[in-house]
Amino acid sequence: MVPQWIIEKKRDGREIADKELKEFIDGFVNNSIPDYQMAAFAMAVFFKGMSFDEVTAMTDAMMRSGDVLDWSGLSRPTVDKHSTGGIGDKISIPLAPLVAASGAAVPMISGRGLGITGGTLDKLESIPGYNTQLGTDEFRNVLEKIGCSIIGQTSRLAPADKKLYALRDVTGTVQSIPLIASSIMSKKLAEGAKGLVLDVKCGVGAFMKEEVDAKKLAETMIQIGRNMGRSMSALLTDMNQPLGRTVGHTLEIKESIDVLAGKGPKDVTDLTVELGAEMLILADICKNIEEGREAMRSNIATGAGLETFAKMIEAHGGNPGVVEDFSIVTPAPHCIDVTSDENGIISNVDAESIGRITLLLGGGRKLSSDSVDHSVGIDRLVKVGEKVDKGDLVMRLHARNKAEAESVLQLAKNAVVVSDNAPAEKPLFIARLGGKN
Amino acid sequence: MVPQWIIEKKRDGREIADKELKEFIDGFVNNSIPDYQMAAFAMAVFFKGMSFDEVTAMTDAMMRSGDVLDWSGLSRPTVDKHSTGGIGDKISIPLAPLVAASGAAVPMISGRGLGITGGTLDKLESIPGYNTQLGTDEFRNVLEKIGCSIIGQTSRLAPADKKLYALRDVTGTVQSIPLIASSIMSKKLAEGAKGLVLDVKCGVGAFMKEEVDAKKLAETMIQIGRNMGRSMSALLTDMNQPLGRTVGHTLEIKESIDVLAGKGPKDVTDLTVELGAEMLILADICKNIEEGREAMRSNIATGAGLETFAKMIEAHGGNPGVVEDFSIVTPAPHCIDVTSDENGIISNVDAESIGRITLLLGGGRKLSSDSVDHSVGIDRLVKVGEKVDKGDLVMRLHARNKAEAESVLQLAKNAVVVSDNAPAEKPLFIARLGGKN
Repeated sequence: MVPQWIIEKKRDGREIADKELKEFIDGFVNNSIPDYQMAAFAMAVFFKGMSFDEVTAMTDAMMRSGDVLDWSGLSRPTVDKHSTGGIGDKISIPLAPLVAASGAAVPMISGRGLGITGGTLDKLESIPGYNTQLGTDEFRNVLEKIGCSIIGQTSRLAPADKKLYALRDVTGTVQSIPLIASSIMSKKLAEGAKGLVLDVKCGVGAFMKEEVDAKKLAETMIQIGRNMGRSMSALLTDMNQPLGRTVGHTLEIKESIDVLAGKGPKDVTDLTVELGAEMLILADICKNIEEGREAMRSNIATGAGLETFAKMIEAHGGNPGVVEDFSIVTPAPHCIDVTSDENGIISNVDAESIGRITLLLGGGRKLSSDSVDHSVGIDRLVKVGEKVDKGDLVMRLHARNKAEAESVLQLAKNAVVVSDNAPAEKPLFIARLGGKN
Repeated sequence: MVPQWIIEKKRDGREIADKELKEFIDGFVNNSIPDYQMAAFAMAVFFKGMSFDEVTAMTDAMMRSGDVLDWSGLSRPTVDKHSTGGIGDKISIPLAPLVAASGAAVPMISGRGLGITGGTLDKLESIPGYNTQLGTDEFRNVLEKIGCSIIGQTSRLAPADKKLYALRDVTGTVQSIPLIASSIMSKKLAEGAKGLVLDVKCGVGAFMKEEVDAKKLAETMIQIGRNMGRSMSALLTDMNQPLGRTVGHTLEIKESIDVLAGKGPKDVTDLTVELGAEMLILADICKNIEEGREAMRSNIATGAGLETFAKMIEAHGGNPGVVEDFSIVTPAPHCIDVTSDENGIISNVDAESIGRITLLLGGGRKLSSDSVDHSVGIDRLVKVGEKVDKGDLVMRLHARNKAEAESVLQLAKNAVVVSDNAPAEKPLFIARLGGKN
């Protein structure tokens, strides 16, 4: 295999054989293929795309560049969820215990936040004592006993993707559907779950702004997963405003507990129920979507999900009391209420601005080496379509001090748009793809 | 300037400012911009092309990455020629003295051959004593006194291009018109000649196979040169068969002397006259193409060109006697005549095969570090359209020994195609672009 021939094949739109792609990825991982050849290849993929066979071979090679977990012997069926991410997306946290409560095993390996996007791992670490670094045996034990465990990525999981992502980030090759799909899927498939539900976000606050791109990404990932023997489905969901009414680690844990306790915001609850229903179908626990939704709603109503969450926290060394008494979590010391200057209907809540406010308050990372303040963020955020009067609360800022709170006040005011007329309704659920296969 | 923003601009087809491109190239040269970013940029250029402003700014930055020669103070007008290269292309060697004989200064900086393509420098070194490494002052003195000097490239000439070319070679980004144009022009413009004539080859034996691509390349280079204040013209010429009847260093020097002595093959002579006429116009020595051709023909007929060539050889430490008595040049020890197996008309002489034969006989380099045997090659090569009978000579192989000669015999036989009917005529001159501006 001559590396530049692979680059030229892709550049000229000719099909690359599985074996060639595997050698190319393996060479990149072991440094026999230099970064500049991979960078040129990635840019050629940006322009020419990849066939389903190519993207599957690439994903397989990246997955096999590190550990691939094997859950055979586990008594529960394994199923997982992946979201392409959005502002206020804390769904994994209520979702995993609710699905586990119905008998599935949810082996979630999550990441940290970067830029305006939060990370599930950071959110969980706002629970006193929660340890995100379990060994493989411990991870398996928690899954077998409790049914869900959310841990952090190790460097042994798809190292090819880690290396390639860092290169794409500085070579203008992030925004390529096959590269995004293979990046996500190489990590998710290495986690070994037999079923995988994708939550592909679409809208101004999402990585994919256009529905057509989000759909293409979802279809590509479904095809990869199926080519590799997994059960796959995907929901395309709206990300034109933040999900839920809170953004920031501690505040999002509180909202997650609210969802588990049956008093969460409608959008977060609905999305959790819907994704969970899909997962229960893929896990062969429920026969159809209505049965799946029913199981999820029941796990909320009976408190089974909340109980499972408490057990998961305990198994991870955290204080499970948090699910009953949130006062054990340290709050941010300074709050400011942001109010509406006029009467009307909320026509926009800009997700990117809301993410940026949280970042500026100290709740995010500009560099991956930064530490985050778990306590800061936003709650009581209004939703598009809600009526407000002048002086009504549109969000509450939680800050480390008065100066930091005031520094984002104008940005917070501008993030919420009040109009005379109700905006066109944007449904949370845009499309459903894949399904039990 | 954030490097990935420049890459993204190019990727998305947005115009890059001169200053940004300059910083990008400068950063690449001083290693603050890594190879992988340049590789991704080059691939984006492959797909999106460059505007004339962009390619000019890039060429300017690459030119200024090293020495830029300045011929102010020279009494002669400076003019040069560049060919995109082809099998049997020895035009520079008779051309420079013929143009110099009419009063111009031709400061030629030439390269060595690689693969199946020969290099002017290697050819000149088959003349005993010829030194291709003159210092700047010596170069200027020879130009002032004799009017032409052909020397080798130094590492101080457009080092950005040297670095970028090496990267393009291994990243599938060689075949990009703006990158080819800026590579050629950064070196040629650094040589400082006020006028430049381009010989852009087109056909199966050329870098540009299609006329449309050759034309686009010529137009791009003309635009760059004009944007940088040079007088530019270009000829598009055919390269479907080798140029002339000889390939190989020593043999091509012999053919060059034949051209200067008025007994060279028609195609080499015609092309030399035509390119020289263009050069004399750009140098303001002749008013129009007919006057230019007349001057060139006169310099052949009077022997003025041959005399200038002898003086140039002498000034470079070589033995000028070679122009009168070629026996002082060492010939290859073993010759084999390749003959036709049938009666008919030559319908094809495959340029690539002819180049490959010379390479296999030891007259070329597989790696740039290889040394070459000057004596080997091919002469008495038939031309397309000529009539042959069975047993007639189609070429003579000059080899180091019998075994090497015989090893290429079949390739040589296959390179020449004899047909019953005359092939469609392909004119040597396809188009003329640019001109005095």
